[in-house]
Amino acid sequence: MGIRIGILGYGNLGRGVEAAIAQNPDLELAAVFTRRGPGQVRIKTENVPVLPSGDLLHMQDQIDVLILCGGSATDLPEQTPYYASLYHVVDSFDTHANIPAHFDAVDRAAREAKKTALISCGWDPGLFSLNRLYANCILPQGKDYTFWGRGVSQGHSDAVRRIKGVKDCRQYTVPVPEAQEAVRSGSNPELTTRQKHTRECFVVAEEGADLAQIERQIVTMPNYFSDYDTTVHFISQEELDRDHAGLPHGGSVIRTGATGDGAHQHVIEYSLKLDSNPEFTGSVLAAYARAVYRLGREGSFGCKTVFDIAPAYLSAESAEELRAHLL
Amino acid sequence: MGIRIGILGYGNLGRGVEAAIAQNPDLELAAVFTRRGPGQVRIKTENVPVLPSGDLLHMQDQIDVLILCGGSATDLPEQTPYYASLYHVVDSFDTHANIPAHFDAVDRAAREAKKTALISCGWDPGLFSLNRLYANCILPQGKDYTFWGRGVSQGHSDAVRRIKGVKDCRQYTVPVPEAQEAVRSGSNPELTTRQKHTRECFVVAEEGADLAQIERQIVTMPNYFSDYDTTVHFISQEELDRDHAGLPHGGSVIRTGATGDGAHQHVIEYSLKLDSNPEFTGSVLAAYARAVYRLGREGSFGCKTVFDIAPAYLSAESAEELRAHLL
Repeated sequence: MGIRIGILGYGNLGRGVEAAIAQNPDLELAAVFTRRGPGQVRIKTENVPVLPSGDLLHMQDQIDVLILCGGSATDLPEQTPYYASLYHVVDSFDTHANIPAHFDAVDRAAREAKKTALISCGWDPGLFSLNRLYANCILPQGKDYTFWGRGVSQGHSDAVRRIKGVKDCRQYTVPVPEAQEAVRSGSNPELTTRQKHTRECFVVAEEGADLAQIERQIVTMPNYFSDYDTTVHFISQEELDRDHAGLPHGGSVIRTGATGDGAHQHVIEYSLKLDSNPEFTGSVLAAYARAVYRLGREGSFGCKTVFDIAPAYLSAESAEELRAHLL
Repeated sequence: MGIRIGILGYGNLGRGVEAAIAQNPDLELAAVFTRRGPGQVRIKTENVPVLPSGDLLHMQDQIDVLILCGGSATDLPEQTPYYASLYHVVDSFDTHANIPAHFDAVDRAAREAKKTALISCGWDPGLFSLNRLYANCILPQGKDYTFWGRGVSQGHSDAVRRIKGVKDCRQYTVPVPEAQEAVRSGSNPELTTRQKHTRECFVVAEEGADLAQIERQIVTMPNYFSDYDTTVHFISQEELDRDHAGLPHGGSVIRTGATGDGAHQHVIEYSLKLDSNPEFTGSVLAAYARAVYRLGREGSFGCKTVFDIAPAYLSAESAEELRAHLL
């Protein structure tokens, strides 16, 4: 029998986790839990039940690890501490500024219940964080750069959709190639927000809407767009559905630093090019669910981050196999 | 007081570790040990003794971690098990095929002596291995590629130097750009050894040597050159000293894989561009010496690899600081 995984929330990320479980023979999807009526949710895996989230109250003997696939704004701050008192859990909480508070709440619940919880798993936070950490430890005298994209930002797409007269939108975050090249050259540039990324919006407007007004509202929107050079394209719903249906993303974490009294420059770069952000993120969560299961069995309770988990825990292979084939 | 590091062996790597210790305020160089006469060795750090390696028999109260900077061919297979019975140790053993046997010998010695040992640390094996492992766990259906260079291979340079009539040589391993591009495109090419790398030799010949014969011997040398397209340049010693004094290296680990029934392709790439291979490797060893010290204090004894060590152990910062700033 494999490690029995429960998924709570069946949006893009929940479906991504489901797809990842199917690729890992030692993982097994036990059930998908939803706050919607289970009858409204059809999942891809055959012979696996869709259940109301209330059933999680009494299914501890059927689920080894629960992967929480809700949003960081309102779902996870409530869900992760709550379910960490019932199950070993993994979440992808990504509101960087609130990670310390979220960690504390989850840690308290998990320790009391003798459960293992992993928060902020995915690629950023997650794999990008790991690479920032390794690179910082190896090159203590250096500088970090993170570029995102080219990829779809769902938060920015949603922000545009809230503008009056906008029917639909897909927003791409685009790294500036000249900035990336300057960083990779080791010249340690100081880069403003505007110099690092541009933003590109594909907008479907309602009939008769004031396009100039929509464009002005987008490019001046504080926090989301005003610090960037933003291009707005108005297109039809058909074009949006045809050309912008995917959720690609990616980016790179670069650290440049010097050794030997500054005589020698080094560049460490980690980059991702993803056709499907939710499927890739789901794959990260699935691998870490394996790690959380093992840590739970070892009695290593409380809240963890990717920083606290030795890489070997992620693999289904034995330590001997890993040393022989991957080292 | 910082973590007291001993260095055994003061070649390029030993000097690289010394430079790295100087960049980490919580690490302290306690002594450099040498099998040569200590009087023949001058180190860079002031007020630190150079001692004969025999002194390591009785310096357990002055050294927290001993970093072994000898070669993998003959030094480390003897030194690491031996010193793991006296100290917490770190080595950079890089003969991939012999890692399992080396691990077993070191593990036995370290467990008996209640010491912590880390073998095969550096960038390959080391950081490249870590990235192979993470990427394999996240994309179980995929393909791995490793490219090395452009950089100096000391093993290949030495092999050419052993040819009759050769006074000196610097050999560069060069990745083939077309192969790298094919891999990054996600096309999953099958690549032969010859298609992935070329080799370039800068050779200083002795006066009157048969250059055509030297070139023939190089390009047909089994294991080292016969499977590659190799270019040989004859240059003067002055040119070699002027243009090829550095030890740059680097490379990239790429994994491509698909999710969602093969519908979505992903590319994970980790790459290094290093002006000084030994200084960078020394920096990796220094960061992992910190981890080994902590594992030793926790009573986690025996032989480890980079796979077994949670990333947070490498950092001088607290878990809270890491979560707040790097996650």
